[in-house]
Amino acid sequence: MSKKLKTGVIGLGRIGRIHLSNLIYHMPDAEVIIASDVSPESLAFATELGVPEVTTDAYDVINHPDVEAIIICSPTPFHVPYTVAAAQQKKHIFCEKPLDVTIEAILAAEKAVNDNGVKLMLGFNRRFDTNFINVRHLVKNDKIGNPHILRITSRDPAPPPVEYLKISGGIFLDMSIHDFDMARYIVGSEVKEVFVKGDALIHPEIKEFGDIDTAVIVLTFENGAIGVIDNSRKAVYGYDQRLEIFGSKGMAKAENNTTDNLVRYDNDGGHIALPLHFFLERYETAYRNCLKSFIDCIQNDTPSPVDAHDGLMATAIGIAAMKSLTENRIVRVDEILELSQI
Amino acid sequence: MSKKLKTGVIGLGRIGRIHLSNLIYHMPDAEVIIASDVSPESLAFATELGVPEVTTDAYDVINHPDVEAIIICSPTPFHVPYTVAAAQQKKHIFCEKPLDVTIEAILAAEKAVNDNGVKLMLGFNRRFDTNFINVRHLVKNDKIGNPHILRITSRDPAPPPVEYLKISGGIFLDMSIHDFDMARYIVGSEVKEVFVKGDALIHPEIKEFGDIDTAVIVLTFENGAIGVIDNSRKAVYGYDQRLEIFGSKGMAKAENNTTDNLVRYDNDGGHIALPLHFFLERYETAYRNCLKSFIDCIQNDTPSPVDAHDGLMATAIGIAAMKSLTENRIVRVDEILELSQI
Amino acid sequence: MSKKLKTGVIGLGRIGRIHLSNLIYHMPDAEVIIASDVSPESLAFATELGVPEVTTDAYDVINHPDVEAIIICSPTPFHVPYTVAAAQQKKHIFCEKPLDVTIEAILAAEKAVNDNGVKLMLGFNRRFDTNFINVRHLVKNDKIGNPHILRITSRDPAPPPVEYLKISGGIFLDMSIHDFDMARYIVGSEVKEVFVKGDALIHPEIKEFGDIDTAVIVLTFENGAIGVIDNSRKAVYGYDQRLEIFGSKGMAKAENNTTDNLVRYDNDGGHIALPLHFFLERYETAYRNCLKSFIDCIQNDTPSPVDAHDGLMATAIGIAAMKSLTENRIVRVDEILELSQI
Amino acid sequence: MSKKLKTGVIGLGRIGRIHLSNLIYHMPDAEVIIASDVSPESLAFATELGVPEVTTDAYDVINHPDVEAIIICSPTPFHVPYTVAAAQQKKHIFCEKPLDVTIEAILAAEKAVNDNGVKLMLGFNRRFDTNFINVRHLVKNDKIGNPHILRITSRDPAPPPVEYLKISGGIFLDMSIHDFDMARYIVGSEVKEVFVKGDALIHPEIKEFGDIDTAVIVLTFENGAIGVIDNSRKAVYGYDQRLEIFGSKGMAKAENNTTDNLVRYDNDGGHIALPLHFFLERYETAYRNCLKSFIDCIQNDTPSPVDAHDGLMATAIGIAAMKSLTENRIVRVDEILELSQI
Repeated sequence: MSKKLKTGVIGLGRIGRIHLSNLIYHMPDAEVIIASDVSPESLAFATELGVPEVTTDAYDVINHPDVEAIIICSPTPFHVPYTVAAAQQKKHIFCEKPLDVTIEAILAAEKAVNDNGVKLMLGFNRRFDTNFINVRHLVKNDKIGNPHILRITSRDPAPPPVEYLKISGGIFLDMSIHDFDMARYIVGSEVKEVFVKGDALIHPEIKEFGDIDTAVIVLTFENGAIGVIDNSRKAVYGYDQRLEIFGSKGMAKAENNTTDNLVRYDNDGGHIALPLHFFLERYETAYRNCLKSFIDCIQNDTPSPVDAHDGLMATAIGIAAMKSLTENRIVRVDEILELSQI
Repeated sequence: MSKKLKTGVIGLGRIGRIHLSNLIYHMPDAEVIIASDVSPESLAFATELGVPEVTTDAYDVINHPDVEAIIICSPTPFHVPYTVAAAQQKKHIFCEKPLDVTIEAILAAEKAVNDNGVKLMLGFNRRFDTNFINVRHLVKNDKIGNPHILRITSRDPAPPPVEYLKISGGIFLDMSIHDFDMARYIVGSEVKEVFVKGDALIHPEIKEFGDIDTAVIVLTFENGAIGVIDNSRKAVYGYDQRLEIFGSKGMAKAENNTTDNLVRYDNDGGHIALPLHFFLERYETAYRNCLKSFIDCIQNDTPSPVDAHDGLMATAIGIAAMKSLTENRIVRVDEILELSQI
Repeated sequence: MSKKLKTGVIGLGRIGRIHLSNLIYHMPDAEVIIASDVSPESLAFATELGVPEVTTDAYDVINHPDVEAIIICSPTPFHVPYTVAAAQQKKHIFCEKPLDVTIEAILAAEKAVNDNGVKLMLGFNRRFDTNFINVRHLVKNDKIGNPHILRITSRDPAPPPVEYLKISGGIFLDMSIHDFDMARYIVGSEVKEVFVKGDALIHPEIKEFGDIDTAVIVLTFENGAIGVIDNSRKAVYGYDQRLEIFGSKGMAKAENNTTDNLVRYDNDGGHIALPLHFFLERYETAYRNCLKSFIDCIQNDTPSPVDAHDGLMATAIGIAAMKSLTENRIVRVDEILELSQI
Repeated sequence: MSKKLKTGVIGLGRIGRIHLSNLIYHMPDAEVIIASDVSPESLAFATELGVPEVTTDAYDVINHPDVEAIIICSPTPFHVPYTVAAAQQKKHIFCEKPLDVTIEAILAAEKAVNDNGVKLMLGFNRRFDTNFINVRHLVKNDKIGNPHILRITSRDPAPPPVEYLKISGGIFLDMSIHDFDMARYIVGSEVKEVFVKGDALIHPEIKEFGDIDTAVIVLTFENGAIGVIDNSRKAVYGYDQRLEIFGSKGMAKAENNTTDNLVRYDNDGGHIALPLHFFLERYETAYRNCLKSFIDCIQNDTPSPVDAHDGLMATAIGIAAMKSLTENRIVRVDEILELSQI
C-alpha cells in the first residue's frame, strides 16, 4: 500500500469540518497533520479529532514542510491567494467552490498551479453523487444518444439569512454554480449562451441588493443540446435535487433520495417520504467520495477530476447569468471570457 | 363483417347492468334482443337503453327462438338451472361467477354444456385486466422462469351488509374465488392443497354464522410453486388488488391502478393517490374485455377462455379453504373432488 | 332530463371521427343529425355509425334548420369561416384548436360569437385530463401557495411527415399551443413574455422552412410565476406528457400514464412500462370529457369552459414564441396583440 | 462526555470484521482493547486497524480485566458458552444471532445473564434499519390501527455453498430467524402458531439433509394478527427485503433500498435500479446503529433493546417452523417451549 498522504486543512467551518472528519475517519490513505482556523473553538474540534498541530495562521499550514496537500475551506476571497501560495510551495490543492468570483483571479490560480506542476481539485461534490455519476455514465456510454434537452431542478429547503445573502456573491455564484458545473458534467460539452428569468418571490427585499431567489436559466451547449435549470431558495418540502437528460435514444432522470422507502395508505390518501433535508444529508457520501478522488489522483498521479478550467467555466456561466438577468438578454459565455482578455 | 350475435340478458342487478350497457355501447358485433328481471325498475332501465323486449320470466329469454347467446347475471342459485336450460336450447352461455357452490351442480352444468355442444364462459373478469394479462404473458413467455412463489393481495374497501354476508356462501366462495381463479391463471398449474388462517377481525359477529373477514390462504401447486393470498373485507384506503410472481429467472408484480398519477409534496410529506375505489372502477375495462372475449369465441368458434373446468376448480378450492378453516388443517383439493365422486 | 342536443359534425378526419364516435356512444344528451366531409369514405364511416344525413358541403351542416350545435373538425384555415357562419346561424360551436393562426381572424370569430349570443368552445382536450385537472384544483385550492415555477414536458413519440410539417404552421402553433393553453390553465394567470431556444436536432432539413423540432420555452406570468416548457417531436420511448407546479406551499407533479402498472426484476435490472403511446391513448377519456363539457355548458347555459379569449391567448403566445426564436430575444405577448391593433 | 467503553471482540469473520470496523471508526464512545480469532490473517486485520492486543484464545478476551463488554461473533455453537462465561465475569454481551438453536441453551444463557446483572443484546440488525424502524413507529403510534395482516418478503440473492447449508441449522434458524424477530418487532405481539409450506426448488439436493430453499410461513399472533413470510435462497435480481403491515386504519409498506434512484426510458421500456445487492450493502447503516444501541444501553444503563427473551422466541419459532414442515401441520410455539419444560 502507498504511504499515507500528509494533508493540512485550512478553514474549519461547516464544510471544513466535514472534510476533516472524512479525512480522519474514512481516508486510510491520508492523514491530517495540521489544521488552521481563526476560531479557538474550531481548533479545539480539530484537536479533539486527533489533529496533532493546530494554528490560527493559514500560512502555517501552507508552509509546513511535511504537508503534501492542502484542503482549502476558507471564505471564498481567500481561495485564490491560498491556492497560489500553496502551489508555489509545491503542494497539491483541494479547494472549495467557487474558486473565485472573477475570471482574472481564477486564471491567476490556474497559472500558479500549472507553473508549479501541482494538482488542483475543486469541491464540486455533486459530481460524486451516485445518481448523477450513473446518469453521466449513461450519456457517456451512448445510452441516451445525442443529448437534446437537459433539465436540472435544484431547490434549497430554506434560504440563508439575508445578512449572508448580501455577501454571497448572488444566487448564481453561490447556489446555481453547482448546477452550472453539473450541466457541463452531464452533457459533456461547453455552455455557449445563457439566458435567465428570475425574481425575488420569496424575499422581495433582497432585490434591493440585486439578488433574486427564484430563477429559470436556459443554457445552450456547443453540441446543440439545450439545458434548463430551475432554482429556488425555498422548497418547503426539502432539498430538491433532480435532473433529467433527454436525447435521440431515450431519457434518464435522477429522482431525489428520500428519508425512507415507505409507502403508507390511510383514508386520507397515500403518503411517501420527503427528500433528504439538505446538502449535508443528501451529499454525505458524495463529500466523502469527492475527497477520496482527490487523494487518489495524487497517489496515482492521474489528472484532477475537477480542475481549474472547470472552476473557470462555472464562474463564467455564473457571471453571464447575472448579466443576462440584469440586461434581460441572452449572454454568450465568450463575452464574459473575452471581457477578461482571454 | 360477421353478422351481429343475438343475445339475451338474465338478471339486471349491478353486474347485469354493466354487461347490458357494455353490450349496447361497446359490442358492435352483438345486439341485445331481450332481457329479464323480476323488478319493473330494472326492466325500465333496459327499455331506456333500447332493448326491444323485456320480461319478468328468465325462460322467455332462454326459449326465445332468435337468441343465440345468454348472459346469466341472476343470483347464484339460478346459475346452474339457467345454464342447463340454455344449453338444452342450444344457446351459448356467459355466466357470472361462481357457477355454483357445489361440485355436483357444476358437473351437471358442464355435462349439459358438453352434451349440447354449446360454449360456456364464466365471468372471471380479472383475467381480462391488462396488468394481470401482462403478468401472465411474462410467466408464459418464461420471463419469470419456473414459478416458485405467488403472492396475491385482494382487499375490499368495505364489507357488504351483514345481511348479505349471511347468504353470500362465505368469504371463500364470494370473494376469494376470484383469487383462486387468478392463482391458477397466473401460475398455469392446478392447485393441490389449501391451508387457511383466518378470523373475523373487522366484524366479530359474523363468526356466529361461520364466516370470517380476514384470511391468509396458502396454496400449493402441482408444478411445485407455493402461493399465498391475503384477503380482507375492509381496507380503509380502497380496493387493494396486487399480485406478484417470483421464479427462477426473476419477479414481476402488478401494482394498483390509482385515481391519478400525481405526486404532491408539502411540509407534511409526500402525497400520492389512493387505488381506484372498488371493482366497478378498477375492472371497468376488464368487464368490457371479458364480455368481448365471449362474443369473439362464439363468432370465431374458438374455445371459451374460461370454461366449466375453471369454474369447477375455483369452487373446489373455495370449499377446500372453508374446510381448512373449520378443521384447522391442510386440505387437498382432491379430497373435495373425490367427495363428489369424480 | 333535458331533451337531446341536436348536433352536426364538420370534418371526419382522425379527430372528427373521435368526436363523432364519442357523441354517438358516450353522450346520451346529444345526437348527431348530420355530418359533412369531402371524402366519401369518411361519409360512409358516419353512415355506418348511424348518422342519418351526410353531405360533402359543410354549409349543409351549418344551415341545417334543426342543428343546434356544430362540431368543427375541418383543417385549420376553415375554422374561422365556419365559426362565423355558424354563429350567424345562431348555432353553438365546438371548434378544434387552433382557432386560427392570426390574431385578426380569431378576433373576427370572437366578435361573431358575441354578436350572435352563441357559445364557442375550443378543443383544448388536455384541460379535461384527470391528472391536469387535479393539479389545477391543487393550485386553485391554495395547496401549492403562490405559484413560482411551472414546468411542462411535452414530447411526441414521432414527428409527422415532413410534408405535413411544411403546412403545420410551425411547432409552436401546431404542437406547443396545447402547452401554452395548459400553462395559462394551471397557473391561472396570463403570460406576459416569451423566450425560446430551439433547434432542428431530429430533422435538420426542416430548418429550411423555418421550423424546429426541439424547443425550450420560458414564459413569465403576470402573477410573477416563471414557466418553462420543453418540447420534442421525437421521444423514442413514447408520448411524454408531464408537468410540475412549484410554489410557496409545496409542489405537485403529474407523471405519465403508462400501459400497465407492472414492475419486473431480473438479473438485467428493474423494468417498468412506457408511457401510453400517443395522444389517442393518453387523452382518450379527456376527449370524451371535453366534448361532454361542451354539451353541458349548452344544456345548462353556463359559460364555455374554453372560450375565444383562450384561443386568442394561446395563438398570441405561439406567435410570440416564433418571433422570439427568429429574433433571438424576449418577446412580450402584448407586442403581438398590439401589432394587431387590439 | 462519558468515558469510553472498553470492549473486546471474539471472532473476526465477515460479521466480526464489520463490528470491529464500526467500533473503531464510528463509535467514539467505545474502544476495542482486545480481539480474538483462530486465524492469524484475521488477527493481522485487527492489528492493522489498531487493536492493541490480539489472541487466538477467546477466553483471553472474556477474562481480560479491563474489558467491560464483549462482542461475540464466533460460530453459533460457541455463542452460549462464551455468553455464560462473559456473564460470570460480569461483562456485558453483544451476541450475534441466533443465540443458540436449542431452547435449553438459550435459557441457560438467559439465567447466567440475569444472575450476574449484565446486559445481553442480540445482533438482530434489521431492527435498526430506518425503513423498518419507521414502520414499527407507525404501528406503535396507532397509524395502522389494529394489525390484521403482516407480510414479509425476505429473499437472498444467492444461496451459500451446499457445504455451509449442511451445518447451517436449516433455513429457518439460519435465514428466516431474522424474519421471525422482525415479525414480533413490527406487530408487537407474540407468535402463537406456525405453519410452513416449503420446498427445495432451487437446489433439490439439499432435501437429502432435510433442508429447503423456498418457504411460505404463516404466523398467528396473540393479538389476532396473521403474518406471512416468504423466503427464497435465490432471487436473481438481488436481496429482496420488504414488508407490509395492514390494519384497521390503513397500511404501510417498506420497499427495497436500491443502488440508485434513476429511471431510464428507451424504446425497449422503462428501466429502474435493482435492490442493494446483499445484506452488507442493505444493512450497512443498520449494523452500525445496532452496535451503537448496545453501547448506549450500557452507557445509559437502559434495558437491552434485543434481549435473551427475543432470542428465545425467534429460535422457538424457528424450531416450530421446522416441525411444521416435517410433520405437515400447524405447530404451536408453546409446544416447543413446553417440550423444554419452561
